[in-house]
Amino acid sequence: MNSTETNKKTSPLATAIVLAVIVLAVLLTCAPYFVAIALAEGPTEHADASPIFGVTIPPSYKQWELIAPAEEAAPLDELRAVVGNQIAIDTYKAGKLPFPDGTVLVKRAWKRKQSPEFASATIPGSATTVQVMVKDSKKYVATGGWGFGRFVDGKPVDEAQHRTCFACHEARAKSQDYVFTRLAP
Amino acid sequence: MNSTETNKKTSPLATAIVLAVIVLAVLLTCAPYFVAIALAEGPTEHADASPIFGVTIPPSYKQWELIAPAEEAAPLDELRAVVGNQIAIDTYKAGKLPFPDGTVLVKRAWKRKQSPEFASATIPGSATTVQVMVKDSKKYVATGGWGFGRFVDGKPVDEAQHRTCFACHEARAKSQDYVFTRLAP
Repeated sequence: MNSTETNKKTSPLATAIVLAVIVLAVLLTCAPYFVAIALAEGPTEHADASPIFGVTIPPSYKQWELIAPAEEAAPLDELRAVVGNQIAIDTYKAGKLPFPDGTVLVKRAWKRKQSPEFASATIPGSATTVQVMVKDSKKYVATGGWGFGRFVDGKPVDEAQHRTCFACHEARAKSQDYVFTRLAP
Repeated sequence: MNSTETNKKTSPLATAIVLAVIVLAVLLTCAPYFVAIALAEGPTEHADASPIFGVTIPPSYKQWELIAPAEEAAPLDELRAVVGNQIAIDTYKAGKLPFPDGTVLVKRAWKRKQSPEFASATIPGSATTVQVMVKDSKKYVATGGWGFGRFVDGKPVDEAQHRTCFACHEARAKSQDYVFTRLAP
Protein backbone atom coordinates (compact mmCIF):
# COMPACT_ATOMS: atom_id res chain seq x y z
CA MET A 1 0.00 0.00 0.00
CA ASN A 2 1.54 3.32 -1.04
CA SER A 3 0.70 6.79 0.27
CA THR A 4 -1.59 7.58 -2.69
CA GLU A 5 -3.73 4.53 -1.82
CA THR A 6 -3.83 5.65 1.83
CA ASN A 7 -5.15 9.07 0.70
CA LYS A 8 -7.81 7.37 -1.39
CA LYS A 9 -8.86 5.25 1.60
CA THR A 10 -9.34 8.20 3.98
CA SER A 11 -11.28 10.36 1.55
CA PRO A 12 -14.67 8.54 2.03
CA LEU A 13 -14.54 9.39 5.73
CA ALA A 14 -13.83 13.06 4.95
CA THR A 15 -16.65 13.04 2.42
CA ALA A 16 -18.99 11.52 4.99
CA ILE A 17 -18.12 14.22 7.51
CA VAL A 18 -18.66 16.99 4.95
CA LEU A 19 -21.98 15.42 3.94
CA ALA A 20 -23.02 15.12 7.59
CA VAL A 21 -22.26 18.81 8.12
CA ILE A 22 -24.27 19.74 5.05
CA VAL A 23 -27.21 17.57 6.11
CA LEU A 24 -27.11 19.07 9.60
CA ALA A 25 -26.95 22.60 8.16
CA VAL A 26 -29.86 21.90 5.82
CA LEU A 27 -31.92 20.43 8.66
CA LEU A 28 -31.23 23.48 10.82
CA THR A 29 -32.17 25.65 7.86
CA CYS A 30 -35.49 23.94 7.46
CA ALA A 31 -36.38 23.58 11.15
CA PRO A 32 -37.92 27.07 11.54
CA TYR A 33 -40.04 26.53 8.44
CA PHE A 34 -41.22 23.11 9.66
CA VAL A 35 -42.18 24.75 12.96
CA ALA A 36 -43.93 27.57 11.10
CA ILE A 37 -45.88 25.07 9.04
CA ALA A 38 -46.78 23.05 12.12
CA LEU A 39 -48.04 26.19 13.84
CA ALA A 40 -49.89 27.52 10.79
CA GLU A 41 -53.39 28.51 11.73
CA GLY A 42 -56.50 27.65 9.86
CA PRO A 43 -59.68 25.75 10.32
CA THR A 44 -59.66 22.04 9.72
CA GLU A 45 -62.58 19.69 9.36
CA HIS A 46 -63.63 17.86 12.51
CA ALA A 47 -66.60 17.08 14.69
CA ASP A 48 -66.84 20.61 16.03
CA ALA A 49 -67.47 22.12 12.60
CA SER A 50 -70.41 24.43 12.05
CA PRO A 51 -73.49 23.08 10.24
CA ILE A 52 -73.94 24.14 6.60
CA PHE A 53 -70.42 25.62 6.36
CA GLY A 54 -68.11 23.16 8.12
CA VAL A 55 -66.23 26.03 9.75
CA THR A 56 -64.19 25.32 12.89
CA ILE A 57 -62.53 27.48 15.52
CA PRO A 58 -58.93 28.14 14.42
CA PRO A 59 -56.60 26.63 17.05
CA SER A 60 -54.53 29.73 17.78
CA TYR A 61 -56.94 32.57 17.13
CA LYS A 62 -56.25 34.08 20.55
CA GLN A 63 -52.76 34.95 19.33
CA TRP A 64 -54.08 36.80 16.28
CA GLU A 65 -53.80 40.54 15.87
CA LEU A 66 -56.65 42.74 17.05
CA ILE A 67 -58.74 44.35 14.34
CA ALA A 68 -61.09 46.22 16.67
CA PRO A 69 -62.99 46.00 19.92
CA ALA A 70 -66.70 46.81 20.10
CA GLU A 71 -69.43 47.17 22.67
CA GLU A 72 -73.00 45.88 22.42
CA ALA A 73 -75.51 47.64 24.64
CA ALA A 74 -78.43 45.88 26.32
CA PRO A 75 -79.99 43.41 25.86
CA LEU A 76 -76.75 41.70 24.72
CA ASP A 77 -74.55 43.79 27.01
CA GLU A 78 -71.33 42.49 25.60
CA LEU A 79 -67.76 43.50 24.98
CA ARG A 80 -66.31 42.14 21.78
CA ALA A 81 -63.00 41.93 20.00
CA VAL A 82 -62.47 40.89 16.40
CA VAL A 83 -59.10 39.39 15.55
CA GLY A 84 -57.83 38.16 12.19
CA ASN A 85 -55.19 35.94 10.65
CA GLN A 86 -52.30 37.51 8.74
CA ILE A 87 -54.18 37.49 5.42
CA ALA A 88 -57.01 39.43 7.05
CA ILE A 89 -54.66 41.95 8.65
CA ASP A 90 -52.69 42.47 5.44
CA THR A 91 -55.91 43.06 3.51
CA TYR A 92 -57.21 45.56 6.04
CA LYS A 93 -53.90 47.43 5.97
CA ALA A 94 -53.81 47.49 2.16
CA GLY A 95 -57.42 48.72 2.19
CA LYS A 96 -58.28 46.50 -0.78
CA LEU A 97 -61.49 44.50 -0.84
CA PRO A 98 -62.54 41.78 -1.38
CA PHE A 99 -60.70 39.73 1.23
CA PRO A 100 -58.73 36.94 -0.50
CA ASP A 101 -59.34 33.24 0.00
CA GLY A 102 -57.74 32.11 3.24
CA THR A 103 -58.91 35.14 5.20
CA VAL A 104 -60.18 34.16 8.65
CA LEU A 105 -61.87 36.54 11.08
CA VAL A 106 -62.80 35.62 14.64
CA LYS A 107 -65.06 37.62 16.90
CA ARG A 108 -64.64 36.99 20.61
CA ALA A 109 -67.45 38.14 22.90
CA TRP A 110 -67.98 38.45 26.65
CA LYS A 111 -70.73 39.64 28.93
CA ARG A 112 -69.89 43.11 30.18
CA LYS A 113 -69.29 43.42 33.88
CA GLN A 114 -68.49 46.26 36.20
CA SER A 115 -64.80 46.90 36.81
CA PRO A 116 -64.07 46.35 40.52
CA GLU A 117 -61.70 49.34 40.44
CA PHE A 118 -63.53 51.97 38.38
CA ALA A 119 -67.25 52.78 38.49
CA SER A 120 -67.11 54.12 34.93
CA ALA A 121 -65.50 51.04 33.39
CA THR A 122 -66.83 47.71 32.19
CA ILE A 123 -64.60 44.72 31.52
CA PRO A 124 -65.06 41.19 30.14
CA GLY A 125 -67.16 38.84 32.22
CA SER A 126 -67.84 35.29 31.05
CA ALA A 127 -67.21 34.43 27.41
CA THR A 128 -70.41 34.12 25.39
CA THR A 129 -69.77 33.27 21.74
CA VAL A 130 -66.90 32.82 19.32
CA GLN A 131 -67.87 33.66 15.75
CA VAL A 132 -65.74 32.77 12.76
CA MET A 133 -65.78 33.85 9.11
CA VAL A 134 -63.66 31.98 6.56
CA LYS A 135 -63.17 33.20 3.00
CA ASP A 136 -63.23 30.52 0.31
CA SER A 137 -64.76 31.92 -2.85
CA LYS A 138 -65.21 28.49 -4.45
CA LYS A 139 -66.51 26.55 -1.45
CA TYR A 140 -68.89 29.28 -0.26
CA VAL A 141 -70.00 30.69 -3.60
CA ALA A 142 -73.64 30.90 -2.46
CA THR A 143 -72.82 33.08 0.54
CA GLY A 144 -70.54 35.77 -0.85
CA GLY A 145 -67.48 33.55 -0.53
CA TRP A 146 -67.78 33.37 3.25
CA GLY A 147 -68.33 30.38 5.51
CA PHE A 148 -69.69 31.09 8.98
CA GLY A 149 -69.35 29.42 12.36
CA ARG A 150 -70.96 30.43 15.63
CA PHE A 151 -69.76 28.64 18.75
CA VAL A 152 -70.84 28.54 22.39
CA ASP A 153 -68.46 26.80 24.79
CA GLY A 154 -66.49 25.62 21.78
CA LYS A 155 -69.49 23.84 20.20
CA PRO A 156 -71.28 25.06 17.06
CA VAL A 157 -74.83 26.32 17.49
CA ASP A 158 -77.63 24.76 15.46
CA GLU A 159 -78.30 24.92 11.74
CA ALA A 160 -81.23 27.35 12.11
CA GLN A 161 -78.93 29.96 13.68
CA HIS A 162 -76.33 29.41 10.97
CA ARG A 163 -78.97 30.12 8.31
CA THR A 164 -79.25 33.68 9.66
CA CYS A 165 -75.57 34.64 9.31
CA PHE A 166 -75.30 35.49 5.66
CA ALA A 167 -78.70 37.19 5.36
CA CYS A 168 -77.68 39.79 7.92
CA HIS A 169 -74.16 40.28 6.55
CA GLU A 170 -75.59 40.58 3.04
CA ALA A 171 -78.28 43.06 4.05
CA ARG A 172 -75.95 45.37 5.98
CA ALA A 173 -72.35 44.94 4.86
CA LYS A 174 -72.35 43.83 1.24
CA SER A 175 -70.35 46.90 0.18
CA GLN A 176 -67.56 45.90 2.61
CA ASP A 177 -67.31 42.33 1.32
CA TYR A 178 -69.92 41.33 3.94
CA VAL A 179 -67.63 42.26 6.85
CA PHE A 180 -68.87 44.67 9.52
CA THR A 181 -65.66 45.30 11.43
CA ARG A 182 -63.21 47.95 10.27
CA LEU A 183 -59.57 48.11 11.36
CA ALA A 184 -59.21 50.29 14.45
CA PRO A 185 -56.89 53.25 13.79
CA MET B 1 1.32 14.95 -14.85
CA ASN B 2 -0.25 11.64 -13.77
CA SER B 3 -3.87 11.06 -12.75
CA THR B 4 -3.10 11.35 -9.05
CA GLU B 5 -1.73 14.86 -9.58
CA THR B 6 -4.82 15.78 -11.62
CA ASN B 7 -7.03 14.66 -8.73
CA LYS B 8 -4.97 16.79 -6.36
CA LYS B 9 -5.36 19.83 -8.64
CA THR B 10 -9.16 19.62 -8.84
CA SER B 11 -9.71 19.07 -5.14
CA PRO B 12 -9.37 22.82 -4.13
CA LEU B 13 -12.28 23.63 -6.46
CA ALA B 14 -14.37 20.81 -5.01
CA THR B 15 -13.48 22.00 -1.51
CA ALA B 16 -14.49 25.54 -2.42
CA ILE B 17 -17.86 24.34 -3.71
CA VAL B 18 -18.48 22.28 -0.57
CA LEU B 19 -17.51 25.27 1.59
CA ALA B 20 -19.78 27.56 -0.41
CA VAL B 21 -22.67 25.14 0.10
CA ILE B 22 -21.96 24.99 3.84
CA VAL B 23 -21.74 28.80 4.11
CA LEU B 24 -25.00 29.17 2.17
CA ALA B 25 -26.69 26.57 4.35
CA VAL B 26 -25.46 28.26 7.53
CA LEU B 27 -26.65 31.67 6.28
CA LEU B 28 -30.06 30.23 5.46
CA THR B 29 -30.10 28.62 8.90
CA CYS B 30 -29.44 31.91 10.60
CA ALA B 31 -31.69 34.12 8.47
CA PRO B 32 -34.92 33.43 10.42
CA TYR B 33 -33.14 34.20 13.69
CA PHE B 34 -31.68 37.44 12.33
CA VAL B 35 -35.18 38.41 11.22
CA ALA B 36 -36.57 37.45 14.63
CA ILE B 37 -33.93 39.54 16.37
CA ALA B 38 -34.58 42.48 14.05
CA LEU B 39 -38.30 42.27 14.79
CA ALA B 40 -37.84 41.76 18.53
CA GLU B 41 -40.14 44.04 20.44
CA GLY B 42 -39.18 46.17 23.37
CA PRO B 43 -38.90 49.81 24.23
CA THR B 44 -35.67 51.60 23.39
CA GLU B 45 -34.48 54.98 24.54
CA HIS B 46 -35.15 57.84 22.17
CA ALA B 47 -36.67 61.30 21.92
CA ASP B 48 -40.22 60.03 22.25
CA ALA B 49 -39.63 58.52 25.69
CA SER B 50 -41.92 59.39 28.57
CA PRO B 51 -40.71 61.87 31.21
CA ILE B 52 -39.60 60.40 34.56
CA PHE B 53 -39.62 56.82 33.26
CA GLY B 54 -38.07 56.94 29.77
CA VAL B 55 -40.69 54.50 28.48
CA THR B 56 -41.36 54.39 24.72
CA ILE B 57 -44.05 52.85 22.55
CA PRO B 58 -42.92 49.33 21.55
CA PRO B 59 -42.60 49.25 17.74
CA SER B 60 -44.83 46.25 17.08
CA TYR B 61 -47.34 46.37 19.91
CA LYS B 62 -50.28 46.19 17.50
CA GLN B 63 -49.27 42.62 16.73
CA TRP B 64 -49.34 41.62 20.39
CA GLU B 65 -51.93 39.28 21.84
CA LEU B 66 -55.11 40.73 23.31
CA ILE B 67 -55.39 40.56 27.09
CA ALA B 68 -58.82 42.20 27.33
CA PRO B 69 -61.03 44.90 25.88
CA ALA B 70 -62.79 47.41 28.13
CA GLU B 71 -65.27 50.22 27.88
CA GLU B 72 -65.13 53.58 29.64
CA ALA B 73 -68.46 55.36 30.01
CA ALA B 74 -68.87 59.14 29.82
CA PRO B 75 -67.12 61.48 30.20
CA LEU B 76 -64.26 59.50 28.63
CA ASP B 77 -66.56 57.46 26.38
CA GLU B 78 -63.83 55.17 25.16
CA LEU B 79 -63.29 51.65 23.94
CA ARG B 80 -60.01 50.15 25.05
CA ALA B 81 -57.91 47.09 24.44
CA VAL B 82 -54.92 45.99 26.48
CA VAL B 83 -52.33 43.88 24.69
CA GLY B 84 -49.12 42.40 26.06
CA ASN B 85 -45.79 41.00 24.96
CA GLN B 86 -45.11 37.27 25.28
CA ILE B 87 -43.75 37.60 28.83
CA ALA B 88 -46.96 39.32 29.87
CA ILE B 89 -49.18 36.72 28.21
CA ASP B 90 -47.21 33.81 29.68
CA THR B 91 -47.47 35.33 33.15
CA TYR B 92 -51.21 35.88 32.84
CA LYS B 93 -51.69 32.29 31.67
CA ALA B 94 -49.56 30.90 34.49
CA GLY B 95 -51.52 33.06 36.93
CA LYS B 96 -48.36 33.85 38.90
CA LEU B 97 -47.68 37.39 40.07
CA PRO B 98 -45.57 39.49 40.14
CA PHE B 99 -44.93 40.03 36.43
CA PRO B 100 -41.24 39.38 35.66
CA ASP B 101 -38.83 42.00 34.34
CA GLY B 102 -39.34 42.47 30.63
CA THR B 103 -43.13 42.44 30.86
CA VAL B 104 -44.67 45.12 28.66
CA LEU B 105 -48.36 46.00 28.62
CA VAL B 106 -49.92 48.43 26.16
CA LYS B 107 -53.38 49.91 26.45
CA ARG B 108 -54.89 51.19 23.21
CA ALA B 109 -57.86 53.55 23.47
CA TRP B 110 -60.37 55.07 21.06
CA LYS B 111 -63.33 57.37 21.34
CA ARG B 112 -66.52 55.31 21.11
CA LYS B 113 -68.68 55.97 18.11
CA GLN B 114 -71.96 54.62 16.90
CA SER B 115 -71.78 51.62 14.57
CA PRO B 116 -73.26 52.62 11.19
CA GLU B 117 -74.87 49.16 10.93
CA PHE B 118 -76.25 48.50 14.41
CA ALA B 119 -77.97 50.97 16.71
CA SER B 120 -76.96 48.94 19.76
CA ALA B 121 -73.25 48.80 18.94
CA THR B 122 -70.35 51.19 19.45
CA ILE B 123 -67.04 50.82 17.67
CA PRO B 124 -63.65 52.57 17.75
CA GLY B 125 -63.59 56.16 16.56
CA SER B 126 -60.37 58.16 16.62
CA ALA B 127 -57.45 56.87 18.69
CA THR B 128 -56.98 58.82 21.92
CA THR B 129 -54.07 57.52 23.99
CA VAL B 130 -51.57 54.71 24.02
CA GLN B 131 -50.45 53.79 27.53
CA VAL B 132 -47.48 51.58 28.26
CA MET B 133 -46.26 49.78 31.39
CA VAL B 134 -42.78 48.26 31.45
CA LYS B 135 -41.56 46.02 34.27
CA ASP B 136 -37.98 46.57 35.40
CA SER B 137 -37.71 45.91 39.11
CA LYS B 138 -34.27 47.55 39.39
CA LYS B 139 -34.83 50.61 37.21
CA TYR B 140 -38.27 51.42 38.60
CA VAL B 141 -37.80 50.37 42.21
CA ALA B 142 -39.63 53.48 43.51
CA THR B 143 -42.79 52.69 41.52
CA GLY B 144 -43.44 49.04 42.22
CA GLY B 145 -41.05 47.95 39.48
CA TRP B 146 -43.11 49.59 36.75
CA GLY B 147 -42.25 52.36 34.33
CA PHE B 148 -45.13 54.24 32.76
CA GLY B 149 -45.67 56.02 29.46
CA ARG B 150 -48.76 57.88 28.27
CA PHE B 151 -48.79 58.95 24.64
CA VAL B 152 -51.07 61.08 22.50
CA ASP B 153 -50.43 60.99 18.74
CA GLY B 154 -47.24 59.06 19.48
CA LYS B 155 -45.82 61.80 21.76
CA PRO B 156 -45.48 61.45 25.52
CA VAL B 157 -47.71 63.67 27.66
CA ASP B 158 -46.13 65.96 30.23
CA GLU B 159 -44.33 65.12 33.47
CA ALA B 160 -47.24 66.22 35.66
CA GLN B 161 -49.51 63.62 34.08
CA HIS B 162 -46.84 60.95 34.45
CA ARG B 163 -46.61 61.71 38.16
CA THR B 164 -50.20 60.50 38.56
CA CYS B 165 -49.73 57.02 37.05
CA PHE B 166 -48.26 55.11 39.94
CA ALA B 167 -50.33 56.74 42.66
CA CYS B 168 -53.54 55.44 41.08
CA HIS B 169 -52.14 51.99 40.28
CA GLU B 170 -50.80 51.73 43.82
CA ALA B 171 -54.04 52.84 45.43
CA ARG B 172 -56.27 50.49 43.45
CA ALA B 173 -54.29 47.54 42.09
CA LYS B 174 -51.37 46.88 44.44
CA SER B 175 -52.59 43.34 45.15
CA GLN B 176 -52.41 42.56 41.41
CA ASP B 177 -48.84 43.79 41.02
CA TYR B 178 -50.27 47.26 40.19
CA VAL B 179 -52.01 46.00 37.03
CA PHE B 180 -55.73 46.59 36.56
CA THR B 181 -56.40 44.43 33.53
CA ARG B 182 -57.14 40.74 33.89
CA LEU B 183 -56.85 38.20 31.09
CA ALA B 184 -60.20 37.82 29.32
CA PRO B 185 -61.48 34.24 29.51
